[in-house]
Amino acid sequence: VNTVGIVGVGLIGGSFALALRKAGFTGRIVGVSSAATVEKALALAVIDEALPLSDAAAVSDLIYLAQPISQILETLDAIDEYVRPGTLITDAGSTKAAICERGASKITRGRFIGGHPMAGKESRGVEHADADLFRGRPYVLTARDPELEQWIERIGARLLFLNPKEHDELAAVVSHVPQLISTALAAQIGAAAGASTLAGPAAVDLTRLALSPYDVWRDILATNSVPIRAALKEFGGILEGLGRQLNEPGMEQEFLRAAKAARGLRSVSSGKD
Amino acid sequence: VNTVGIVGVGLIGGSFALALRKAGFTGRIVGVSSAATVEKALALAVIDEALPLSDAAAVSDLIYLAQPISQILETLDAIDEYVRPGTLITDAGSTKAAICERGASKITRGRFIGGHPMAGKESRGVEHADADLFRGRPYVLTARDPELEQWIERIGARLLFLNPKEHDELAAVVSHVPQLISTALAAQIGAAAGASTLAGPAAVDLTRLALSPYDVWRDILATNSVPIRAALKEFGGILEGLGRQLNEPGMEQEFLRAAKAARGLRSVSSGKD
Repeated sequence: VNTVGIVGVGLIGGSFALALRKAGFTGRIVGVSSAATVEKALALAVIDEALPLSDAAAVSDLIYLAQPISQILETLDAIDEYVRPGTLITDAGSTKAAICERGASKITRGRFIGGHPMAGKESRGVEHADADLFRGRPYVLTARDPELEQWIERIGARLLFLNPKEHDELAAVVSHVPQLISTALAAQIGAAAGASTLAGPAAVDLTRLALSPYDVWRDILATNSVPIRAALKEFGGILEGLGRQLNEPGMEQEFLRAAKAARGLRSVSSGKD
Repeated sequence: VNTVGIVGVGLIGGSFALALRKAGFTGRIVGVSSAATVEKALALAVIDEALPLSDAAAVSDLIYLAQPISQILETLDAIDEYVRPGTLITDAGSTKAAICERGASKITRGRFIGGHPMAGKESRGVEHADADLFRGRPYVLTARDPELEQWIERIGARLLFLNPKEHDELAAVVSHVPQLISTALAAQIGAAAGASTLAGPAAVDLTRLALSPYDVWRDILATNSVPIRAALKEFGGILEGLGRQLNEPGMEQEFLRAAKAARGLRSVSSGKD
């Protein structure tokens, strides 16, 4: 890879550029973004050069789509005619089935591999880009590519391979359902007169995600609605099961099992595995 | 108040004793607890003296029950015959209806007022007692008493008056349902092969409560099962409603409303109101 094209130079795209540099990438990094973002990205030396999509596509060996999902889909509709044959295109979208399907049907001269770095920050925008954003975090790819894999490992991420359907079903459980739970709980607390006054750390913890801006979630919910509905239904069933056992001895087993799972995901997500 | 009797000298009882001292209480503090706890509490100067329940009850002007709920209920069954007429008895249990009902029927020589300091720590035991544990935290009383109110304000808590039923219904929403949500989500993630590997900050946040030990929750769930079931049902309805709207424009309003509620409870619980 001599030239990398970053399409969408926000927090993720900008961080990927910085992470590549820190990992020893010495080639050229071109960025495609709005005029305002491009100006900031150049000033911060996150990218070497700004180009329109068609020109960036034509000069890049690796194209990294880090836009919102709906824009990634639009870029996939448009980009293939500009790329050189064999150019690798990957993305950083939070759902994979819709994007990989579009990639499979529209990318014929280039090669498309879906990706999802499970990393983020509360603050968005290239000004918050961070070379270490991916360090220790899972990074899902939907197919193998030795060179892409090598760079993902060099930036410190934990590489995982999942097909798009598997990814989206798991993401529904670990990310999309938690978001909706938090939104629902905040709504319930907001609607119960006096509840906010009593809220302690439990309510604060569980409503943190409810602060997430909708514009990030619109595309995720729209492109993953079937797995999300299935995961919501499963979650509702588990919660109802707990509700039926409130004063039964079996509840202790439920708590033990859940605590074990909660510890398990911590040991993995803190990289202690 | 010349003598305060703390029954159950753990994190909460010990912290109440230390908080009283810090707030200028110059009387005697007697403790009723297991031999091992009493030894630690005396060594840490959290209490001045350890006595059996009957003796502590006989010498105290204010009796503070800070045991687990089921033990508070047992103490209320036994204590009235030992107290001097008019002695104020209050408690720190996490549910109020069962306790206040027991207090109303069993405390006739003394006076019982239910209490719930909405404060805690992950570490329990008198060795973690903290004079500032109640500072800025809500402290619910189920009835008024000028002298008790004055001490609760002096220890820095935010005094609230709720009847037992109101308290338990709100606690179900802000505390008990969040606990069960977290337990259910951890169970779901634990049961989905590969999910832990993908878990990010969202799953970590929402499964923190699932680490809570069951022994704290047994009594809460048993003494508040009716309000908890009602709140679970309401929560399930809100979540289902979100599930039906995943790719509809109305979802934006749901996110905005929930984010507003989440900000609202933060401004209250951080004392910025």
